[in-house]
Amino acid sequence: MSKNSPIIGVDLITGDLPALSLFSDLFKENGEFNAHLKFFVPEGEFAEFESHAKKHSPHFTYSFVKTKSTIEMSDEPLSAIRLKKTSAIPMAMHLLKEGEIDAFVSNGNTGALMCGATLILKLLECTKRPGLLALLPTKGGSLAVIDVGANIHCSSELLEQFANIGIAFQKCCGIKEPKVGLLNIGGEKIKGRAEMREAYEKLQLMNKKHKGRFVGNVEGYQAFNGSCDVLVTEGFSGNIFLKTAEGMSAFILDVITDQNLEQPKKKSFRLFDYAEYPGALICGVDGIVVKCHGYSNTKAVHSAIDGAAKLVKSQFLKKLKTQL
Amino acid sequence: MSKNSPIIGVDLITGDLPALSLFSDLFKENGEFNAHLKFFVPEGEFAEFESHAKKHSPHFTYSFVKTKSTIEMSDEPLSAIRLKKTSAIPMAMHLLKEGEIDAFVSNGNTGALMCGATLILKLLECTKRPGLLALLPTKGGSLAVIDVGANIHCSSELLEQFANIGIAFQKCCGIKEPKVGLLNIGGEKIKGRAEMREAYEKLQLMNKKHKGRFVGNVEGYQAFNGSCDVLVTEGFSGNIFLKTAEGMSAFILDVITDQNLEQPKKKSFRLFDYAEYPGALICGVDGIVVKCHGYSNTKAVHSAIDGAAKLVKSQFLKKLKTQL
Repeated sequence: MSKNSPIIGVDLITGDLPALSLFSDLFKENGEFNAHLKFFVPEGEFAEFESHAKKHSPHFTYSFVKTKSTIEMSDEPLSAIRLKKTSAIPMAMHLLKEGEIDAFVSNGNTGALMCGATLILKLLECTKRPGLLALLPTKGGSLAVIDVGANIHCSSELLEQFANIGIAFQKCCGIKEPKVGLLNIGGEKIKGRAEMREAYEKLQLMNKKHKGRFVGNVEGYQAFNGSCDVLVTEGFSGNIFLKTAEGMSAFILDVITDQNLEQPKKKSFRLFDYAEYPGALICGVDGIVVKCHGYSNTKAVHSAIDGAAKLVKSQFLKKLKTQL
Repeated sequence: MSKNSPIIGVDLITGDLPALSLFSDLFKENGEFNAHLKFFVPEGEFAEFESHAKKHSPHFTYSFVKTKSTIEMSDEPLSAIRLKKTSAIPMAMHLLKEGEIDAFVSNGNTGALMCGATLILKLLECTKRPGLLALLPTKGGSLAVIDVGANIHCSSELLEQFANIGIAFQKCCGIKEPKVGLLNIGGEKIKGRAEMREAYEKLQLMNKKHKGRFVGNVEGYQAFNGSCDVLVTEGFSGNIFLKTAEGMSAFILDVITDQNLEQPKKKSFRLFDYAEYPGALICGVDGIVVKCHGYSNTKAVHSAIDGAAKLVKSQFLKKLKTQL
């Protein structure tokens, strides 16, 4: 496989998405994928998918993997991975491990995705559990938020590990001295739950080696000021944070659209469109796995595939291992 | 005291606010307060405050209460209330209890405010612990979010109680059949922490009596769709939710301001300006206590005072007791 045209596994079957129309939209997209897409398609729907694919002249090469079972959103993750071995997630993880695909993009069950990645791919050095990392726009550039939904209970050790992964990620993105903040409900170090107060103490020790690295607690409204490059959080609050930011911006973008503004002005607001961002990356495993929301639209899936391809081309994983 | 011109206690001393300039800005405001304001001022700063007050011809009548101690943001709430009896919060709670003031607005230590309200004012019937309720704009009108920061650990019983207070609040605001959602990280009832899954079961029972009352789990991005009128959450995530929504909208409003839009278009975006909203109400205690953020600007404090005065005038507390 050539790194200039990586092979991206795509699983768009589960959830509420009208998968077929999305699939056909992807073929109609103007943007060109510099990647080969390998779609995971349920055996029963395969004929329909294939005829769709043939009808449209694609801007990218593609192939299919037939799946014989489907992990539902309500499935318990561990049992799903163990019992539904012929579904997209475990199949893709094995292909990723064997180097048959270079990255995997899915909008399926987050827990199963994390679980599959942890069990089948190896964990990276210094990693106890993987975290989900998402990028959000701020006044100071892209903010890496970790964890946005993988671990709803986090020890202070895990939060510290997320800080290190986030720093390594931002270094790979060209930020020489990334600053780290801890998502909390107040600036004072006594704020928040016990594990947050412990994490505060641990993260503060970073400043002994790298002056100014830990900027302290960051509240929801400060996160957009650009005061930090990495925002550390347990997965429950991180998920609320990410989806609230996206929900509020979608709400405002709707009002802006109603305002009949000129096109250039509208364009400047694209910064706030979550669909422009490349999904959430499972950080801490030896493979590039990207999770899109269950409610992702075609544009969001497109951004996620594009983002995954860029990570492969830039040899992100290799760089990340060096940074950790 | 006349309910048409209620007496509102105002404590703007603690936190990062440049209290004096804020105080003087309040006097310069064009908007008229239909209320008598009773400012809590540290004894040492009293002379300066009084001279400021005399310089500006106020749009409202005012008086002062001298405080001899100050509760800091970093103070432990319970000890602060017990040991700093001559500070604004405990003094105001006693005045509220005795009917000397009709409402109290503060941007001080949230924990101390909750603690003072619980210890000094009586809890309302069916209330184990008070919650902080804030209003946010959505496509469907004002959403009452409870709790936005008072209780960082909540049992499912407490979450159920918050649902009932939220329903009573929205009924007082004229919504006949308020719909309730539970802030969570996925739609499925197995999502979230144990107490959320338990709360889901409890809230679902509401639908036996009132069809459609509980709409299920609501994710951060759905909250703005107007699918519910009350959003139930534990205080940690609720605080993240509220401040993230405010932070994202402030960020976008900044970009909009930079766009040089015409005034009427700008005006339509005021909907998203948190400073237009009346702070958070401590719900579940026998008194009207409003908490502003530590970062509130003059407009936000103005909205909070105005909101508190409106609650007094509409006999909100009496109505709430009937609804509970």
